Amino acid sequence: MKIAITGKGGVGKTTLASILAHLYAEEGKNVIAVDADPDANLASALGIPQDEAEKIKPIAEMADLIEERTGAKPGSMGGTFRLNPKVDDLPEGIGYRMNRILLLTMGKVKAAASGCYCPENVLLRSLLKHLIVKRSEVVIVDMEAGIEHLTRGTAESVDGFIVVVEPGQRSIQTARTVFAMAHTLGVNKVFVVANKVRGDSDVAFIEHHIGGQHVIGSIAFSNAIMEADMKGSAPSNYSRETVNEVREIKKKIEMSLNTVQ
Amino acid sequence: MKIAITGKGGVGKTTLASILAHLYAEEGKNVIAVDADPDANLASALGIPQDEAEKIKPIAEMADLIEERTGAKPGSMGGTFRLNPKVDDLPEGIGYRMNRILLLTMGKVKAAASGCYCPENVLLRSLLKHLIVKRSEVVIVDMEAGIEHLTRGTAESVDGFIVVVEPGQRSIQTARTVFAMAHTLGVNKVFVVANKVRGDSDVAFIEHHIGGQHVIGSIAFSNAIMEADMKGSAPSNYSRETVNEVREIKKKIEMSLNTVQ
Repeated sequence: MKIAITGKGGVGKTTLASILAHLYAEEGKNVIAVDADPDANLASALGIPQDEAEKIKPIAEMADLIEERTGAKPGSMGGTFRLNPKVDDLPEGIGYRMNRILLLTMGKVKAAASGCYCPENVLLRSLLKHLIVKRSEVVIVDMEAGIEHLTRGTAESVDGFIVVVEPGQRSIQTARTVFAMAHTLGVNKVFVVANKVRGDSDVAFIEHHIGGQHVIGSIAFSNAIMEADMKGSAPSNYSRETVNEVREIKKKIEMSLNTVQ
Repeated sequence: MKIAITGKGGVGKTTLASILAHLYAEEGKNVIAVDADPDANLASALGIPQDEAEKIKPIAEMADLIEERTGAKPGSMGGTFRLNPKVDDLPEGIGYRMNRILLLTMGKVKAAASGCYCPENVLLRSLLKHLIVKRSEVVIVDMEAGIEHLTRGTAESVDGFIVVVEPGQRSIQTARTVFAMAHTLGVNKVFVVANKVRGDSDVAFIEHHIGGQHVIGSIAFSNAIMEADMKGSAPSNYSRETVNEVREIKKKIEMSLNTVQ
């Protein structure tokens, strides 16, 4: 199972990613949780203590590794370097392990522009592609809003994209951009999750504005989730209700994908 | 007056930027509002109708302009191109004008990695630098979380950074990163604005966790602001209370900067 979670900043991608990771781990699955959004903090949401989380070095900042694998010093421009660096051995030696969950923090994976080929990006993209295409674990990627740095081949290997929206036009506009990109990439499975809803009318609002897309599940606005963020704790330990809502969403996604997980 | 607004995704940077832009315009100032966060939608928050907003082309996507100014085709790599393209004439011919406010949408200005020099980025950075260093208007930049693509010289020309935080550890962590970067860049004026607060204890929580930084002002959690986003309308037309809170913040920032605006 490979899921990439996207949506506007602040809608709750990281919360959803962390709860899904814990749910799969509870089932006995090995999970690779990928923090691919430099503005997120998946470590904290997974419940990794802050002093531990601060020691996790993003892959984009591992200059020696980048140079070893791409043949180019980070920050260099021009010149030649390997566009397909070897990455298949990387997940064993890097990242932070918490029981069945391996957390990889990518750092700035984002493409500055579609044609940007810095050595750092080449390594990060190769690694993300490898995780999605080749690994047998459950892979959950906490993405930033854009998915355009995925190639068609990589995107086709994702079982589904989840777009998280909240009741508001701006997160819906971000979702529309994701639909358009998913279409371009040949991905049909894009699941809309409504978050922070204050009632059925909020879900109806989202369904009305999102252009005919079905909302697969919703998560209620929760003060407990805010409290978890204030304590720096894992949301999955804080709100049984939210975890149950995510469990329903997980079930529906699996049914839709028709996979026997 | 030049202000760059930063903070974690979803904390309310764009809302604050749009209200500040309207307040300065009401005073009779010419305002350049810069949407430098690809995940934001400053056009919508300023009240530009969606069909108009969709016509605004981000500068990063103006391939002809980028090639003309940098000497390199967007998406090209290696080769040579001008690292200091001419940009001083640009603000007159581009962007969207709404009375006294000129909106510039940058597109993907973000640096993929610190050493990334794509032609698009070079043009965007030069333009941002020019706006901040040379223009006499009120410049309000809706930034993404990072400010590391500003150079020391550019950063010193900003009168102040505003970091927006909400009651939660994750937005506070983002703010801490901004403080560290501001310090590295030699900028002392970083103003913390607490947003979405539900009472004095939320402000106290933020002050306690933010490491001795003073909170210059706060904005209450507002259903009206959520409603504005649901309608796709300008927050400044929706919540008189929020506008007044921003007016207080603006006043305090001006006092702190000791500028006669």
